[in-house]
Amino acid sequence: MTLKEFANAKAIELGKDVLRMTAASGSGHPSSGLSIMHIVVTLMQDVMRWDPADPWNPGNDRLVLSEGHAVPAVYAVYADMAGVVGSNPANTRKLTKADLSTLRETHSVLDGHPNPAEGFPFFDAATGSLGQGLSVGAGLGVAARLAKSDKQIYVLIGDGESREGQIWEAMDFIADHGLFNVIPIFNCNGQGQADYVSRQQSAEMIAGKAEAFGFAAIIIDGHDADAFKAALGDAANRRAPLAIIARTHKGWGCASLKDVSNHGKPLGAAQLDKGIADLDATAAELKITVGAASRIPAKPQSITRPAKKPIAIPPFAEGMAAAGLGSLVEKNAVATRRAYGAALLALGAADERITALDGDVRNSTFSEMFYKKYPARFVECKIAEQNMVSVAAGMAAAGHIPFASSFAKFLARAYDQVEMAMITRANIKLVGSHAGVSLAADGPSQMSLQDVAYFRSASMTDARGFLERDSKSNTPSSKAPAKPVCVSLQPADAVAAYHLTALMANHDGLCYMRTHRPDIGLLYKPETRFEIGGSHVLMEGNALTLVSTGYMVHECKKAAEMLAKDGVKVTLIDAYSLPLDTKPIFAAAAKTNSRILVVEDNYLGGLAGAIAEDAAEQGDIRVASMTCRTMPKSAKSTEDILTYVGLSSKDIMARVKSLIG
Amino acid sequence: MTLKEFANAKAIELGKDVLRMTAASGSGHPSSGLSIMHIVVTLMQDVMRWDPADPWNPGNDRLVLSEGHAVPAVYAVYADMAGVVGSNPANTRKLTKADLSTLRETHSVLDGHPNPAEGFPFFDAATGSLGQGLSVGAGLGVAARLAKSDKQIYVLIGDGESREGQIWEAMDFIADHGLFNVIPIFNCNGQGQADYVSRQQSAEMIAGKAEAFGFAAIIIDGHDADAFKAALGDAANRRAPLAIIARTHKGWGCASLKDVSNHGKPLGAAQLDKGIADLDATAAELKITVGAASRIPAKPQSITRPAKKPIAIPPFAEGMAAAGLGSLVEKNAVATRRAYGAALLALGAADERITALDGDVRNSTFSEMFYKKYPARFVECKIAEQNMVSVAAGMAAAGHIPFASSFAKFLARAYDQVEMAMITRANIKLVGSHAGVSLAADGPSQMSLQDVAYFRSASMTDARGFLERDSKSNTPSSKAPAKPVCVSLQPADAVAAYHLTALMANHDGLCYMRTHRPDIGLLYKPETRFEIGGSHVLMEGNALTLVSTGYMVHECKKAAEMLAKDGVKVTLIDAYSLPLDTKPIFAAAAKTNSRILVVEDNYLGGLAGAIAEDAAEQGDIRVASMTCRTMPKSAKSTEDILTYVGLSSKDIMARVKSLIG
Repeated sequence: MTLKEFANAKAIELGKDVLRMTAASGSGHPSSGLSIMHIVVTLMQDVMRWDPADPWNPGNDRLVLSEGHAVPAVYAVYADMAGVVGSNPANTRKLTKADLSTLRETHSVLDGHPNPAEGFPFFDAATGSLGQGLSVGAGLGVAARLAKSDKQIYVLIGDGESREGQIWEAMDFIADHGLFNVIPIFNCNGQGQADYVSRQQSAEMIAGKAEAFGFAAIIIDGHDADAFKAALGDAANRRAPLAIIARTHKGWGCASLKDVSNHGKPLGAAQLDKGIADLDATAAELKITVGAASRIPAKPQSITRPAKKPIAIPPFAEGMAAAGLGSLVEKNAVATRRAYGAALLALGAADERITALDGDVRNSTFSEMFYKKYPARFVECKIAEQNMVSVAAGMAAAGHIPFASSFAKFLARAYDQVEMAMITRANIKLVGSHAGVSLAADGPSQMSLQDVAYFRSASMTDARGFLERDSKSNTPSSKAPAKPVCVSLQPADAVAAYHLTALMANHDGLCYMRTHRPDIGLLYKPETRFEIGGSHVLMEGNALTLVSTGYMVHECKKAAEMLAKDGVKVTLIDAYSLPLDTKPIFAAAAKTNSRILVVEDNYLGGLAGAIAEDAAEQGDIRVASMTCRTMPKSAKSTEDILTYVGLSSKDIMARVKSLIG
Repeated sequence: MTLKEFANAKAIELGKDVLRMTAASGSGHPSSGLSIMHIVVTLMQDVMRWDPADPWNPGNDRLVLSEGHAVPAVYAVYADMAGVVGSNPANTRKLTKADLSTLRETHSVLDGHPNPAEGFPFFDAATGSLGQGLSVGAGLGVAARLAKSDKQIYVLIGDGESREGQIWEAMDFIADHGLFNVIPIFNCNGQGQADYVSRQQSAEMIAGKAEAFGFAAIIIDGHDADAFKAALGDAANRRAPLAIIARTHKGWGCASLKDVSNHGKPLGAAQLDKGIADLDATAAELKITVGAASRIPAKPQSITRPAKKPIAIPPFAEGMAAAGLGSLVEKNAVATRRAYGAALLALGAADERITALDGDVRNSTFSEMFYKKYPARFVECKIAEQNMVSVAAGMAAAGHIPFASSFAKFLARAYDQVEMAMITRANIKLVGSHAGVSLAADGPSQMSLQDVAYFRSASMTDARGFLERDSKSNTPSSKAPAKPVCVSLQPADAVAAYHLTALMANHDGLCYMRTHRPDIGLLYKPETRFEIGGSHVLMEGNALTLVSTGYMVHECKKAAEMLAKDGVKVTLIDAYSLPLDTKPIFAAAAKTNSRILVVEDNYLGGLAGAIAEDAAEQGDIRVASMTCRTMPKSAKSTEDILTYVGLSSKDIMARVKSLIG
């Protein structure tokens, strides 16, 4: 039996499973599943070297299903191979054909779109929001190269999906970094959701584009497994990145599903028999002999992952001196972004899992310090933030602890990618610099003003917890403590930035840190401790409790000092973490008549929202807030722009007086 | 004097202005400005047909500066032509050379990056966050074609910037729609911020990519105005979209600025004389005669814009029947997304300014109804949401009222584009469907859970107001009432969705509406009125005030009905608007012991945040909340997933009892 005959046989047999499971679930995308079935069978049962009994094995070749809605095809092949499922290798079971009918049920491991966190560890990342998979694959490719592994990463991409610009960001990235181990496979079935795909996404156009991006592009019949395997060729002989463009039929083999209007529609109970009969008719027509046993893939090469362990960095003064920032510390004027650079440098020395990514602004975010010392572990992503975030997610899936930095404002275009990383529970660290109105001169196009509210919204502690990974194997253990879906941190000085960077490295989960442009004075003793949910009381008084974060802590301190001259003593708290434990804050506020004023340099719904929500639940605490409520613009200095938006120390002072007056 | 000689002369003369103004401001990007000066002079003083005394003229050819940091070049040329500035044509003045030194000052019209809302109406959109300008230009191109105008839109794009995937989304879009009136000009100076640009963004590679995307690509010397003009050719003769790739030198003519490390650096006071002398030396070396008078551009063709007027739609029943939804209304099961489609259809009949855009999901968002009736005013953007949002911003700048729809989740990848539209005060309407956990089966990759917090964060009323536009000329008037930067609406039934859609059309500013997938019952009488900031009391009781929005209003209603059977009567309020006027809500809550429970189907910081922030400021109102605090997954039904995340009617009922108990 040739590979082509084998794949045909499996496409008929497992195609029926796809029809059945989507009919059972009442939703899903059977026609997309049928269009990729030959490719998926060929990859999973012939080409890829991997262990169905150990999908966590770091040596496995990987498949990223970027067009996530087609996932029933992968589930069917996986069940055919009795691959194991579960969020924990200590407690796995083999997926059976019977399981397939649980597709999309509440407690099924077979989520509607690829979702490793629900117990399907064959995948490295949640997909389903389109255009992101190739970047994830590129991240896996970078990690494989760093591990000196020849493992291959195959990425299946829809033709309609290849309209997403991120796909072409990833193509540039793969070409730039010479990642011949990442193979995009464009599935050209010609149908999108609402209509046929544009001519711009035809097989010919995609092939032409891939070549223009520096790839060797090969167009094949996606239902011909021999042609597919031949096109893949021998990885060791590649002299350019390879792109395969597979012409396929949506609803292959099943006449009742071939229509463009059937994108997301399963067959109804009444149509299911007809659909199965269609596949049988196709088998007869093409003389396909159904009933082949599943093939057992070649074993993967073993690779060793660096052990998981706590990461310690040197004391603040030492770390800053090593980064060449000793004189700035002496001058008492160090931007938080600089201290981030110093901490990242120290982390790089402490643990080889630490990697850094940046989007052509490393000399502004100060990831440049890491780049200069550890160029092999630095991944320059150029001006393409969506790709950068998804690459980081791919690297995290391979065991890295990637720090991805850019201007906070520019990360906003990657929020969908951030959300997919949250679903994956990817262990990535995002660092956004030049945040808030304090940026001044560059104006609002460079200021990040909604990021605090955005990341705060996902700071809830997820009762379902995260997948804890075992130290040796980097595989999930059975411990699953509750954790925030996203930890968001905002340092007010260099000491805080230095320690919070280390804290992020040691926290397994998505973290965001927001740094500011201006050089500012130190507030903290070098050995101060910082923790998730924490805050620090900087001044104590009895008139009112001022709570602030980041740059604005300094503006509040100025206000507090001016107030003190007028005989008004306030408590000042730096609330640097979201999630935030508000109990200590309310305890401090109890000494100021339970009156609180929160001051921020961003729009609504950030820190003030977090404190007000807790306060309003108790009902006996008053929380006023000052946030940026005016569209900012350029201004020559931070002082100018703060005055312009009504957040200067004088404004804060006046507000305090009006609240206590 | 040839055009080339003229542009050379101006490049020396106005290049000095660029050096001086950035030195005066202490920031800015002089080297980028010098790299595009020949192109900008040639466009603004020779090629473009436009009126420097009336930059609002809808017939003007347009220049979009996608690489916004290079804006000092445009300011210098504009001052040389004495173009008028101001946010209001009734109160303009000519820009002078002396004004240039106010660059980036708090009250200057010359913002750090292009920012029409600050009084520089030559631009159609704020730029500066990279990769977005070509899409804005494409929106202007669509609008020009609808207006049957032959006006041309030139878009200047940096080479480093062309790494952004959105640029290639825009290239696909321009090719798809045959927009030969939109001309991307890639400025290839070879330098990014932190480093040289990748080989992937070399002039040759960009030209090859442009050709693969269906463009005629011409590589020129960007400092040769004759070559540039020749490459533009005659617009009427184009048989394919044109892309110009201009090789330039960063810091052209100024040896002290040619280094890669000078991306954003102005010359210091001490270096300024040397920089000016460099330009003089360049003039001498190239035998350039400086001192040419500025050229007066050709007048634009006049085009008429549709008048601005209130837009009325038929009564609910009539509008729903016209959309073929009469039977669903009778069955009392109509998804809000369907009613959106019906309202959009009615709006299309009422006013030709109404246009619709979608990203290949028009059969899910129900913009399909509009597409079928008004195909010429429907813009299919395929699966490329970033481009879609920026195209809408471009269309709005040309006087359209564009409604752009996709799944709410997929709009998240365009949040940076949304933020740039906010800075522009673009009159665009975004409609995100399939929001929240009620989506169920498709799982979290398709659920939008942070959108409420995100859009709420910009719902503050901006004291600086918006640019009101005059009805005839679509030009700004002097009225600038305070307005929310962003209005975010969430209908709980079809009646609300129908009227809120019309409300958005009549509100001049950025609006977001969030619709849900399930078909649900009607809550409102057909003629109910809805307004920005509004809410409606649906049930009255004395035990507690339940506040909810969107789909969850139904779940709360179920809970309230179950509670009533137990003798517990609650007040139920539908708070469909952010911003939200909380006074009526607190007044209603006063009758329930000032106890409030807010219920939402999204993560933190949404409606509950808005209510809690106001309540905590008063201090005598208790606000508890139930929001999605668990990562959701696929589930077969909405009921299943609500139970899974703890938001079912039973959970709500239990929480109410615990709060009052």
